[in-house]
Amino acid sequence: MELMNARGTRDFAPEEKIVRQGIIDMLRATFELYGFSPLETPVIERMEVLSAKYAGGAEILKETFNFKDQGKRDLGLRYDLTVPMARFVGMNPNIKMPFKRYQIGQVFRDGPIKTGRYREFWQCDVDIVGSKSMLADAQCVQIAKKFFADLGIDVIIEINNRKVLDGIMESAGIEEKKWLDVILEIDKLKKTGLKSVEDEIKKKGIGKEELVKLIEMISLTGPNKQKVEKLRLLLKNDTGEEGLKEIEELLSYADGENIVFNIALSRGLSYYTGPVFEVFLKDEKTFGSSLAGGGRWDRMIGDFLGSKKEFPAVGISFGIEPITAVLGMLKKEDKPTKTVTQVYVVPINTVAKCVSICEEFRKGGVKTDMDIMGRGVSKNLDYANKMGIPYALIVGEDEVKQKKYKLKDMDSGKEQALAVKDIIKKLC
Amino acid sequence: MELMNARGTRDFAPEEKIVRQGIIDMLRATFELYGFSPLETPVIERMEVLSAKYAGGAEILKETFNFKDQGKRDLGLRYDLTVPMARFVGMNPNIKMPFKRYQIGQVFRDGPIKTGRYREFWQCDVDIVGSKSMLADAQCVQIAKKFFADLGIDVIIEINNRKVLDGIMESAGIEEKKWLDVILEIDKLKKTGLKSVEDEIKKKGIGKEELVKLIEMISLTGPNKQKVEKLRLLLKNDTGEEGLKEIEELLSYADGENIVFNIALSRGLSYYTGPVFEVFLKDEKTFGSSLAGGGRWDRMIGDFLGSKKEFPAVGISFGIEPITAVLGMLKKEDKPTKTVTQVYVVPINTVAKCVSICEEFRKGGVKTDMDIMGRGVSKNLDYANKMGIPYALIVGEDEVKQKKYKLKDMDSGKEQALAVKDIIKKLC
Repeated sequence: MELMNARGTRDFAPEEKIVRQGIIDMLRATFELYGFSPLETPVIERMEVLSAKYAGGAEILKETFNFKDQGKRDLGLRYDLTVPMARFVGMNPNIKMPFKRYQIGQVFRDGPIKTGRYREFWQCDVDIVGSKSMLADAQCVQIAKKFFADLGIDVIIEINNRKVLDGIMESAGIEEKKWLDVILEIDKLKKTGLKSVEDEIKKKGIGKEELVKLIEMISLTGPNKQKVEKLRLLLKNDTGEEGLKEIEELLSYADGENIVFNIALSRGLSYYTGPVFEVFLKDEKTFGSSLAGGGRWDRMIGDFLGSKKEFPAVGISFGIEPITAVLGMLKKEDKPTKTVTQVYVVPINTVAKCVSICEEFRKGGVKTDMDIMGRGVSKNLDYANKMGIPYALIVGEDEVKQKKYKLKDMDSGKEQALAVKDIIKKLC
Repeated sequence: MELMNARGTRDFAPEEKIVRQGIIDMLRATFELYGFSPLETPVIERMEVLSAKYAGGAEILKETFNFKDQGKRDLGLRYDLTVPMARFVGMNPNIKMPFKRYQIGQVFRDGPIKTGRYREFWQCDVDIVGSKSMLADAQCVQIAKKFFADLGIDVIIEINNRKVLDGIMESAGIEEKKWLDVILEIDKLKKTGLKSVEDEIKKKGIGKEELVKLIEMISLTGPNKQKVEKLRLLLKNDTGEEGLKEIEELLSYADGENIVFNIALSRGLSYYTGPVFEVFLKDEKTFGSSLAGGGRWDRMIGDFLGSKKEFPAVGISFGIEPITAVLGMLKKEDKPTKTVTQVYVVPINTVAKCVSICEEFRKGGVKTDMDIMGRGVSKNLDYANKMGIPYALIVGEDEVKQKKYKLKDMDSGKEQALAVKDIIKKLC
């Protein structure tokens, strides 16, 4: 047998999983502070659900892992957490609205493997179903703001509105069937620059006059409010004005230095209907990919369920992979730790006593491990050092008599003789 | 499209997921106190790994979901967390020993659906690889002891040793090829009673004399130490004595009122080589299934890897499903909560102010939600009540002026006028 992972899947060794788990725990804590509750849907879904109209669409379906169970039923692995949530909402007509849920879990896509693309990866979604209020959209922006601030990462949260983009298209006189194509080109403005975007839009058969108007609008500068005012003077149509009003209301609830109205932002997906948001590292030269993104998608659930009832929705999704990558880049100085253990107890002919010292530490909330290999002191200290454990406690017979134990700081090498309760105080 | 879950899979609505997540969080915290670190392996594995000799075996393989990726590679969904760990250990020859890891995640079995059996369910495993010391086994027992004590559930932790059982077989004069069959019958002693076990063993062609000796040994009573001594006098063989010494050593590190040497305990699996443990609710009439179980399995990883190097291992696995069921039975009085939210803010013409009050609460660590539906006060209180949110905060213009807000206890109906910082103190 050849020992290998399935292509496009990865193991996360403890030193990696500790970091990822830390990010996930912080996301969960932030979501819960905003009143979102956890939902769990299964990894396995029926293909009828995954392939339904208005679900993920043909492109995603090509990349869906599918198989049959013993009863020959067609099943597949979920490719996102959105379609399962829509199914859950449809199957539970009595859930109270607004339905505020988060879900964090693996999704699967049998696509080509490129750098940073995997066949099994985590998604981390938070959504509000059932409210059209900009208060809901503002919560998504606030969550991003609080999470990255708590993580100590300087980000820019870009916001825009699909209605504003539609309004720009209309105002520039572009024919409606070309709107989505042009909007997707404009989205590349930051990455490829104005010249390239102009060229690409020209290729789509947009006339010079229309292009000039378009470029004028998407190139507006200034603080958020000023940009709204400037664009208002140029737009002059209902759709655009509605979008601008939504932006103003959103900003009235969730503004800040790092929240930027980016007129060119659209985000790829076609199903957004109102506000869109995307979070980038402030220093984009260091890391250009987005760390989180979302928006309002008022039609998808209702369409998917074939329901006459409306299911307005807004949400934001956090990328565990890019956030982990950015943390790794910014916090290089930290020595990677291979364990959660805070203190490693080394017995010298005091095994039974060490077992009870360990139990005292654990009762006090200290993550504690001890030698179970019967190694000598220097081998044990070497192990503690290689594992990145911050403290070792050396317990000889003298220490047991005096009830004071040598706590060794593994970084500085300094030792201090302390009672168990003082060590607990120090480490908690 | 018919809205349905795949057969044998379930959704966990927030009110269920909150309870399950709470159990998982406590397990994680306990594992980490004992110096275990998280490992993540993927859901998808290569069939070559899942179907390898010494992996799950033929029975489990029949129930393994399998499929191909676009490159026609044979893949399957993991049926446990043990085989993937063995693969990880084999692929990482430089990991430091002892390797102490926990993993919590979904596993999949395409088997028949009965009550309490699912095709997608969670396993929650903690294992130590690389140590033969009973200190390692003792940690598994201590983890169970601490976890259930912290959870407030009275349990009995039964321990035994496969060497003791082998010693009993030898001592009773049973031919070796029948040992495993007889041991599995003895395991049913508590469930089916002595008479039934005797009958079943007779059917296996065990003679009267052998049976009498066997029954004498497995029927010994008394406190743990006394039982060890009584059995020692009857056993008189090396294997049995080795097992008894291991039990004595294990008990010297991890004893307690609720730790019971059960001579009949074997646990079904054939791969155990030494101590075995199983955790039951103390009041077994209320709930008879085991809540956790494990043991030492010194040979499987080495055999699986086809390695000459030894990989001794011991671990314990916690059952999220039975633990959730027991919690539900014991804590019936608790009103189910559909949300994590602690306080629900109700604006009366004070929306913008409420947005900033919510942010203050969240900064203070209070899980906070507010009306985003523009509902009236009584509809909002009704919503808070139905969701099981403990407090509502009513914010009118007068309250804003006075900077004191009416905090309504949703259970008692009592209201108290408090400043934001006092509410944070009260709720944190």
